[in-house]
Amino acid sequence: MAEEQPKVEAAQEGGEQEQVIDPWSVSGGADGRIDYNKLLEQFGCSKLTEDLVARVEKLTGKPAHPFLKRGIFFAHRDLQEILDCYEKGIPFYLYTGRGPSSEALHLGHLVPFMFTKYLQDAFGVPLVIQLTDDEKSLWRGLDIDEARRLARENAKDIIACGFDVSKTFIFSDFEFVGGAFYRNIIRIQRCVTMNQVRGIFGFSMEDNIGKIAFPAVQAAPSFPDCFPHMFGTRKDIRCLIPCAIDQDPYFRMTRDVAPRIGHQKPALIESKFFPALQGESGKMSASDTTSAIFVNDTPAQIKDKINKYAFSGGGATVEEHRAKGANLAVDVPWKYLNFFMEDDNKLARIGEEYGSGRMLTGEIKKELITVLTDMVSRHQRARAQVTDEVVDAFMAVRPMNVV
Amino acid sequence: MAEEQPKVEAAQEGGEQEQVIDPWSVSGGADGRIDYNKLLEQFGCSKLTEDLVARVEKLTGKPAHPFLKRGIFFAHRDLQEILDCYEKGIPFYLYTGRGPSSEALHLGHLVPFMFTKYLQDAFGVPLVIQLTDDEKSLWRGLDIDEARRLARENAKDIIACGFDVSKTFIFSDFEFVGGAFYRNIIRIQRCVTMNQVRGIFGFSMEDNIGKIAFPAVQAAPSFPDCFPHMFGTRKDIRCLIPCAIDQDPYFRMTRDVAPRIGHQKPALIESKFFPALQGESGKMSASDTTSAIFVNDTPAQIKDKINKYAFSGGGATVEEHRAKGANLAVDVPWKYLNFFMEDDNKLARIGEEYGSGRMLTGEIKKELITVLTDMVSRHQRARAQVTDEVVDAFMAVRPMNVV
Repeated sequence: MAEEQPKVEAAQEGGEQEQVIDPWSVSGGADGRIDYNKLLEQFGCSKLTEDLVARVEKLTGKPAHPFLKRGIFFAHRDLQEILDCYEKGIPFYLYTGRGPSSEALHLGHLVPFMFTKYLQDAFGVPLVIQLTDDEKSLWRGLDIDEARRLARENAKDIIACGFDVSKTFIFSDFEFVGGAFYRNIIRIQRCVTMNQVRGIFGFSMEDNIGKIAFPAVQAAPSFPDCFPHMFGTRKDIRCLIPCAIDQDPYFRMTRDVAPRIGHQKPALIESKFFPALQGESGKMSASDTTSAIFVNDTPAQIKDKINKYAFSGGGATVEEHRAKGANLAVDVPWKYLNFFMEDDNKLARIGEEYGSGRMLTGEIKKELITVLTDMVSRHQRARAQVTDEVVDAFMAVRPMNVV
Repeated sequence: MAEEQPKVEAAQEGGEQEQVIDPWSVSGGADGRIDYNKLLEQFGCSKLTEDLVARVEKLTGKPAHPFLKRGIFFAHRDLQEILDCYEKGIPFYLYTGRGPSSEALHLGHLVPFMFTKYLQDAFGVPLVIQLTDDEKSLWRGLDIDEARRLARENAKDIIACGFDVSKTFIFSDFEFVGGAFYRNIIRIQRCVTMNQVRGIFGFSMEDNIGKIAFPAVQAAPSFPDCFPHMFGTRKDIRCLIPCAIDQDPYFRMTRDVAPRIGHQKPALIESKFFPALQGESGKMSASDTTSAIFVNDTPAQIKDKINKYAFSGGGATVEEHRAKGANLAVDVPWKYLNFFMEDDNKLARIGEEYGSGRMLTGEIKKELITVLTDMVSRHQRARAQVTDEVVDAFMAVRPMNVV
């Protein structure tokens, strides 16, 4: 990263106790006090000078807040650029927040809000206030509903500081970031450590933090209360997940978590993989169009791909094939027919004929081309009926009487 | 975790190539093929037996899907319990999904949807389909708007499989999990690795994955397009963050990320800490009510706490105090007055009197009690005016002409 990133851990210099400052703990140096100049240096912030305070007064035409004049707000990054903006009439907005960990604020909690209220008044700017109820749930293990309740209680204290309702948006993460769904994500994330996702998913220290957290996003829909417009708050509605077996790690994790967050384990029904045209060990890939049939392929493309690329378990020569038959265990047309041919009897007959060598590779491929061309064209007709309005109808979050 | 969690990494047994199956890669064993029985054993799933298939047919009164009869869906977890539920009339629902990485689906992609359609029809149950456009954005680096577009395109293909619109909810993570805000979270998470958050925040392998991802949630409000109801899609609205300096690590990270996601760096204005009653090295804590004054404290409590607990920099005896004066650098009443006393002149006078020893500890505490009692009672009156309706008015996501 471009900006300097000091380590959080206390450096031990000559055995002397070093101050440690991070979002969760504050401890002073050897004398128990905090050396703010050292902090400025360590963090790389700028000192808030008297000149800047004077400029604030000049620009706003209002006296600086006592917190400014007395050095209580003492450091900054790019405040001068904000003032430049303000001077030029380019808008800015304020953002502050609160982690609602207790019923009532204490005075220390009020400090940023009092100061923010001054800034809002002085500059006449909009303000967003984030209540990180999710953070408190992650770090302190607060029950989610309790964290949400505390956020509302804290909001009352914050509002009491006098903010301008026409320019202030207060939000709780649990309410605004994503409702019931996001709440479940957080519930799940609380149950899974980095070590565990490393074990389950092979994450490394170089993976981005979104990846590391993502298994919870995939896990959450296993729980019905992610979908209040469908299931209300019911927890007695069990989930069954049909998927290919490579998705199993996600749901092993999900199932382990489920009872710990008061949910039933989702059930699974898992498939083998649909093989690539080149065979089971090949990789079917959307970027390699020769490895798969696509639902927008033309009949000519389907025919061409199957004839050219579909791996055959047939004999090397017609004579050998007639003598030994096809190896069904590796034959792609046979596997594909097993997925998509509807007629059981016909399928069994083909297996017998082809396996024994009476049917040739070209013949089974012809059967497959017929089956797939028919299936793909049916799909294409159906898709043509799907307008944007239909998509909207499916994707709308809407009251649904489904249970 | 209670359930077995096999490692993803390929185990090397006697130098033989082991199969590796996880959500991102599939590679067979030495012969290039996949040993599904081994997978069953390794993952700890159950084999889907003919008995179970027969029971599905009996319960639904419908022929089993060819994928079932032919062993294409071959493994499960708790399918029998789902069937028990169904038999008893206890509802369940289906959940499947798709990571929209390409314009059109291939046939392999259709397999779970075709099977899910059969299950929906056979059991008459609701279905949720998750389009993990966020995952594709995290893993493949797809542009977020492109991932959302692909999700809609893929939804058309999925709908074309014939799902019952009255019982099916299709959603994209980016749309449903949390809109503009969640999208910014993901953008930020993409820019930060586990190694980086370990460096910045001191995360360990035992921290939960929600914590690891959380810095992005705190970072996101720094960008105006998290708040479309306030700022539309404007990116030219700069952000200023007033906060205590211990929050700096979050915003160092945010500022590093900002230009990489097309945003301006948020500016900061950072405060010293508000000290505990016991002094700067004490920890002010909501669970230790003697460490802080709360906004719901009574005048008697305020008076009692300050007199009992506020750390004094005054002399040990009156004589010593008169002779040497108070040590303002460690005196809590003095620090508190610096935060909250409005009258500059009076404050300066108190500093002089107390610092020189002419004013006694009891006297400065008395001044502080007056200031805080007054401030707290003003706060309490203001808070009493904040009804739930007022909270709602602040917290509503609503059109706001703020810039």
